[in-house]
Amino acid sequence: MPSEFSLTRTVEFSETDMAGIMHFSNFFRWMEACEAGFYRSLGLPQISFVPGGVVGWPRIRASCDYKAPLRFNDVIEVKLFIKEVRTKGVVFAFQFRRFTDGKVQPLVLAQGEMVAVFVTTDASGAMVAQPIPAEVRAKLEVAPESAYAP
Amino acid sequence: MPSEFSLTRTVEFSETDMAGIMHFSNFFRWMEACEAGFYRSLGLPQISFVPGGVVGWPRIRASCDYKAPLRFNDVIEVKLFIKEVRTKGVVFAFQFRRFTDGKVQPLVLAQGEMVAVFVTTDASGAMVAQPIPAEVRAKLEVAPESAYAP
Amino acid sequence: MPSEFSLTRTVEFSETDMAGIMHFSNFFRWMEACEAGFYRSLGLPQISFVPGGVVGWPRIRASCDYKAPLRFNDVIEVKLFIKEVRTKGVVFAFQFRRFTDGKVQPLVLAQGEMVAVFVTTDASGAMVAQPIPAEVRAKLEVAPESAYAP
Amino acid sequence: MPSEFSLTRTVEFSETDMAGIMHFSNFFRWMEACEAGFYRSLGLPQISFVPGGVVGWPRIRASCDYKAPLRFNDVIEVKLFIKEVRTKGVVFAFQFRRFTDGKVQPLVLAQGEMVAVFVTTDASGAMVAQPIPAEVRAKLEVAPESAYAP
Repeated sequence: MPSEFSLTRTVEFSETDMAGIMHFSNFFRWMEACEAGFYRSLGLPQISFVPGGVVGWPRIRASCDYKAPLRFNDVIEVKLFIKEVRTKGVVFAFQFRRFTDGKVQPLVLAQGEMVAVFVTTDASGAMVAQPIPAEVRAKLEVAPESAYAP
Repeated sequence: MPSEFSLTRTVEFSETDMAGIMHFSNFFRWMEACEAGFYRSLGLPQISFVPGGVVGWPRIRASCDYKAPLRFNDVIEVKLFIKEVRTKGVVFAFQFRRFTDGKVQPLVLAQGEMVAVFVTTDASGAMVAQPIPAEVRAKLEVAPESAYAP
Repeated sequence: MPSEFSLTRTVEFSETDMAGIMHFSNFFRWMEACEAGFYRSLGLPQISFVPGGVVGWPRIRASCDYKAPLRFNDVIEVKLFIKEVRTKGVVFAFQFRRFTDGKVQPLVLAQGEMVAVFVTTDASGAMVAQPIPAEVRAKLEVAPESAYAP
Repeated sequence: MPSEFSLTRTVEFSETDMAGIMHFSNFFRWMEACEAGFYRSLGLPQISFVPGGVVGWPRIRASCDYKAPLRFNDVIEVKLFIKEVRTKGVVFAFQFRRFTDGKVQPLVLAQGEMVAVFVTTDASGAMVAQPIPAEVRAKLEVAPESAYAP
């Protein structure tokens, strides 16, 4: 039962902005990519379609603290931690660190958080939060706070 | 029966890259936004969902010639021209021009083209090109080539 | 001295995701676009370049609470409020509301926050927070909390 | 002297649109990411900054033919081919293919092309095309047309 997952990723030219650094909105795309890798590693779908509806994990809250800029061609580790498993949702913490000479550096460049809720859509298309199915919950373990505390 | 449509738009910070100009991929998002405005102006849906499927206009080709850079806070006119109406698709040409002192300047900063095909999805979810419905076709008029020729 | 600013914007096809709603990362791009409009309205640059360096407002924190989805072609008001003016930074609150029949609806679809810090770059290219210049500060007024409290 | 380069990449949730497929604009971001990997593999900078200016490879033309959709979590090979080396620019061809069971499938899902020009900026900030430096040119070899012909 993993409580952590990590992804290595290189900052792309299209992700930079005219200040010469990775645009702040892209950190959220990276967090989600890390979450997607985590679900793949568990053999769980992040989204699925049923007749007339969707089953998935929309976000109800996302935040990020930016401590140092990421630059083009930087190689970055994004690390996911399960902070909390609620009846109908999961809270993830994320940390961004730079690889230098093939080693992850200790400095946390950014620290994020996302709250995702398990939903199905009803007949009108509206999303309705649902208890996380037992077989999904069984695969989610909460990380110790010491693992991701800033 | 319009053969042209235009949209005014300001270059956003998130659309720039570290070279200090609008990233080349965003011109395609702008062309599509202009196309969406065109469909709205005609009262036609750009995409619709039917039980088990989608009706829409995926692109089979897109291209853009970049002649001069767009910069943050530039106010730009994107102009759409219907270049060709085919049995199952439409070819659009697009031109990007800068507003200066509230007037569109003659210089074409970029010239694009998109070929969109009218499709429905079959039982397997695959997209199948369809003849453009008569009521849609009736609203599409081809622009004279002189209108958009570089 | 304004403490609020608003922007009207239509959800684009490229901003949706396969769940059929605006992708959560795009709310941050919209907040920044609203902030850019605010600076333009004040005649203040959001970023400027000096020999060897940049003067600007990078974000040190951004967050968003998502309460209801935005969909393709929705017309949305993004409203900015100055929540706090610090010595070296500004805290903005943002609210997203839908236009229906040309009127902004009361329901807040999303509520965001951004903390931007005034910086210049030093000789090494590193960003260094600076006191907000007096002529900029003179144009910033804090909104009453009642204006944006959820 | 390589004439080809390839990159493996997974379609992300944020890259899909409400039609359930990768948005057509993202193929251009992927082509550029592949080009960036190619330059890194050669030890050449894709962009560099000199006092008062930029040295880089802006695009003057980009195009893509879309033959089959890419979907969330698809694992894709993007392959770059040098199609032509001009005095002041390079023409790249790109092919997108799906990995299935760890093997690249023969079907080309999309075929793209980009023309990048070597530029420096002049005193006014305008980009001026320059002959490709000999040490860069020495690292670029043209691929046989048979390698990428559709």
